[in-house]
Amino acid sequence: MMNSLVPEFQVFFNDHTTNDFNMLFKSLPQNRPYYAVGVPGSFYGRIFPNASIHVVHSSFSLHWLSRVPKQVVDRNSPAWNKGRIQYSNSTDEVVRAYEAQFAEDMECFLHARAQEIVHGGLMVIIIPGRPNGSSHSDSVANATLLLLGSCLVDMAKEGVLLEEKVDSFNLPMYYMSPQELEAAVEQNGFFSIERLEYLPRVPVDDTVSEQLASHLRAALEGLIKQQFGEEILDELFDRYRKKVEEQLSILEIESGKPTHFLAALKRKAN
Amino acid sequence: MMNSLVPEFQVFFNDHTTNDFNMLFKSLPQNRPYYAVGVPGSFYGRIFPNASIHVVHSSFSLHWLSRVPKQVVDRNSPAWNKGRIQYSNSTDEVVRAYEAQFAEDMECFLHARAQEIVHGGLMVIIIPGRPNGSSHSDSVANATLLLLGSCLVDMAKEGVLLEEKVDSFNLPMYYMSPQELEAAVEQNGFFSIERLEYLPRVPVDDTVSEQLASHLRAALEGLIKQQFGEEILDELFDRYRKKVEEQLSILEIESGKPTHFLAALKRKAN
Repeated sequence: MMNSLVPEFQVFFNDHTTNDFNMLFKSLPQNRPYYAVGVPGSFYGRIFPNASIHVVHSSFSLHWLSRVPKQVVDRNSPAWNKGRIQYSNSTDEVVRAYEAQFAEDMECFLHARAQEIVHGGLMVIIIPGRPNGSSHSDSVANATLLLLGSCLVDMAKEGVLLEEKVDSFNLPMYYMSPQELEAAVEQNGFFSIERLEYLPRVPVDDTVSEQLASHLRAALEGLIKQQFGEEILDELFDRYRKKVEEQLSILEIESGKPTHFLAALKRKAN
Repeated sequence: MMNSLVPEFQVFFNDHTTNDFNMLFKSLPQNRPYYAVGVPGSFYGRIFPNASIHVVHSSFSLHWLSRVPKQVVDRNSPAWNKGRIQYSNSTDEVVRAYEAQFAEDMECFLHARAQEIVHGGLMVIIIPGRPNGSSHSDSVANATLLLLGSCLVDMAKEGVLLEEKVDSFNLPMYYMSPQELEAAVEQNGFFSIERLEYLPRVPVDDTVSEQLASHLRAALEGLIKQQFGEEILDELFDRYRKKVEEQLSILEIESGKPTHFLAALKRKAN
């Protein structure tokens, strides 16, 4: 299988323990030119032995925080996030709580990877974020979540679901800017940034509302089901699709700045 | 988590791709003092990079062949295994076909592990087998499978299932003796045998027939379902349990010689 001039590759696929690794393993090609293994566990903690990894690739994952900041679901906290499901367009207290959780998580991520990656090893990350200099609410990703939150609020007003359920529901997601990544890497100290660039926006066609609804449902269905029950899913994402259609311009879907970016970090030799 | 005087451990759990890795990962302790990964694929082929493993442990797995020998399901072959589901008490041709498959598989297993294990590394294997000097049909494991086969033949005679289905069903299992393991290791040449010993028989109580039926069902249900359909399972293993009760002495369950053995092999430095 292997050409002796080509090194052997062993690929470790990591995801939360509750991810469907069975499906992953079945979908791998049978005659793959690499050894494949599955690694269960959160990447905010250690998942590999010291200096055992040469290249890390993380794609569309680092916008997931390790958890919802505690204060935003605490009725007695000034950061209680009533009537919203994430931080954009919320109070300063809520935004600060999310920013603090992001900073803490990012340091955990970089600290763990700094121990696991060999000196000189690489980490290539693709991050759905927001452009430098933009506010949280200007980001497309946050705008799409804001719309989803407004659908839940509508449904609560119409009595389809309980208002308290919306108040206590928050998404553990944070959209960082390249500058925030730079600051976290600087603070951590174990990596140099070799490359940092925006990725081009994907051109959209007239199925964009359908696509966005499917995409968001795939990502969030599990969390929403847990909080509100399975029976609201069809209606929620149908409402969402319609709202997206009505508000394409607000979402800046066709004209906005790039938001996803790529960072290539190198583990320093210290 | 780790004491700096203790080395780090990374444990690779291997099984067929269709094994339920999700269940495995969920059942691992949360604060485990080792890194855990899952490795999908047959151990008769390569599953790890060169010289990347220090200790291999294989428990109750090496009696599974990589496949049923082709000849035994070929009506036109002298090794066609009509009316039986494995090789013990069968014709010489069938026995030789199984022995050849075992020898081929064992060499694949040893050859793959010889590349994957570091020089000086260890392989500890626990094998359900048969004692040196005993015939295939004398082994307890084969006797239990023989009984299962006779239940299937009974059910075919009574019209509960088709005779052809029994004729074309064979189990990919082979119970080696310690001597056969020694010969395979010698032939392969990359390992020395550091230890080879029988394991004591587990004492049985009066639930032995129930236990044997459950054990065999857990191991074989998947294969039997594929061939005969799910609907025969309850009846088959109920008949089996009753046959075991009637024939405890034939199975030598309480008085027999040890059959499971342990082998510790060391990867030679060549």
